[in-house]
Amino acid sequence: MACRAVLELAAAEPMLHGRSKCCERMLVLDTAELSVRMPTMRIETVFLFDLDGTLVDSVYQHVLAWREALDEEGIDLSIWRIHRKIGMSGGLFTNQLLRETGVEINPERVDRLRRRHAEAFLRHAVEIRPLPGACDLMAALSGSGTRWAIATSGRMETVAPSLSALGVDPAKTFVVTRDQVKYAKPDPDLFLAAAERLGVPIETAVVIGDSIWDMLAARRCRALGVGLLSGGYGLEELERSGAARVYEDPADLLEHLDEVGGRR
Amino acid sequence: MACRAVLELAAAEPMLHGRSKCCERMLVLDTAELSVRMPTMRIETVFLFDLDGTLVDSVYQHVLAWREALDEEGIDLSIWRIHRKIGMSGGLFTNQLLRETGVEINPERVDRLRRRHAEAFLRHAVEIRPLPGACDLMAALSGSGTRWAIATSGRMETVAPSLSALGVDPAKTFVVTRDQVKYAKPDPDLFLAAAERLGVPIETAVVIGDSIWDMLAARRCRALGVGLLSGGYGLEELERSGAARVYEDPADLLEHLDEVGGRR
Repeated sequence: MACRAVLELAAAEPMLHGRSKCCERMLVLDTAELSVRMPTMRIETVFLFDLDGTLVDSVYQHVLAWREALDEEGIDLSIWRIHRKIGMSGGLFTNQLLRETGVEINPERVDRLRRRHAEAFLRHAVEIRPLPGACDLMAALSGSGTRWAIATSGRMETVAPSLSALGVDPAKTFVVTRDQVKYAKPDPDLFLAAAERLGVPIETAVVIGDSIWDMLAARRCRALGVGLLSGGYGLEELERSGAARVYEDPADLLEHLDEVGGRR
Repeated sequence: MACRAVLELAAAEPMLHGRSKCCERMLVLDTAELSVRMPTMRIETVFLFDLDGTLVDSVYQHVLAWREALDEEGIDLSIWRIHRKIGMSGGLFTNQLLRETGVEINPERVDRLRRRHAEAFLRHAVEIRPLPGACDLMAALSGSGTRWAIATSGRMETVAPSLSALGVDPAKTFVVTRDQVKYAKPDPDLFLAAAERLGVPIETAVVIGDSIWDMLAARRCRALGVGLLSGGYGLEELERSGAARVYEDPADLLEHLDEVGGRR
């Protein structure tokens, strides 16, 4: 209860003081003061969306594009293992794969894999479509004055076709890509950068993602993780990695938006 | 305990009497008789393998081949939903999809989808490889005199490239395909037919599969389901659908074969 009150204070006056200041204040609040102040304290939720598997139906094309890139490097890896790494930073992904397969890691090889994956993925870009409800969800949030942003581990070169499929103009929407941060997921840098762009504390953010890396990154920065099954992970995998709720896809989330901060 | 003894009796003398006969005999066994007979009673386990995602790394190609076939019919379906139906009978799969999407079902459409899926899949057939450990596992079983068979929901037209990748000659190995039974998974007909071909009661069979449909079919015929993650399902999904144990892939199963009946 105390934590929730702290969060709500922080959310209500995000620009006035940091969290630690707010915590100090909490310690001296007595019950009477709380009961008077509570009704005005609310988290004004913002939504930070992952892109692939969350807003666009592109995970399986990414998986097979990585398989193609790895094949060209003579690296044999089962496809399900690639699937389970989609959503994490491409650099971390290749480093982990190379480490796991015992293949020599060098920057040239990592860069070559990245380029080959991008080339293979872009050949499939025309097949990429929004997931059911994705456009309606973004429109509903904008319509109710709820702010949102997109934060993706992809680079702008592979992200552009997906944004285009969604009808999202990066000049008019907050979109944070891997190009703009030091580390991508499961580091929380992308979500921190997105919250900063929205001018809100990260603790007011709900992170919507389809992969366990989204959920882990959300926990690491104290955002609230909400999972979607539309990237092909199982329900329990997402729950175990920290999802507070799991929905099927954006359409299902839109129907239950009130459960995770959609009320204004 | 009684059930186990019944099973072991049935397995020890599979050709002498059916299960019900065996059960009748069990009822009149007294404790003294049991203690004398028990050491000689064992289940001589046979292994019934699913093919796609279990022995060969072909699930993701099947998923995108179905997506392509559905696209050509103007049916829009998220890819993860296709993934979760892979492994079940192709006819049941298309019927369910058409019902779920509200698209009209007719035999011509179902047949067209089947043909288009097969065409799209066969274009990718050259990419299909055995999963790690698949060939070693089959060789180890054969080497120790443990009998095994393959039972797949696929038709011979799409199964042939996978068998070829595995080096399995259907003339020398028991392979049951969708062409040979009335209903494919999650009906247990394929596994029942495979056990019959091996000349053993289905209760002595361990079914190895990567999908929840394998596990459901195994439970329906009282075989023991063992799951593999190599088709891209989550661990918990397989456990919840009845897997007694779950391993990563054939290599991991081979390392732990003693746990599920590999000892002779």
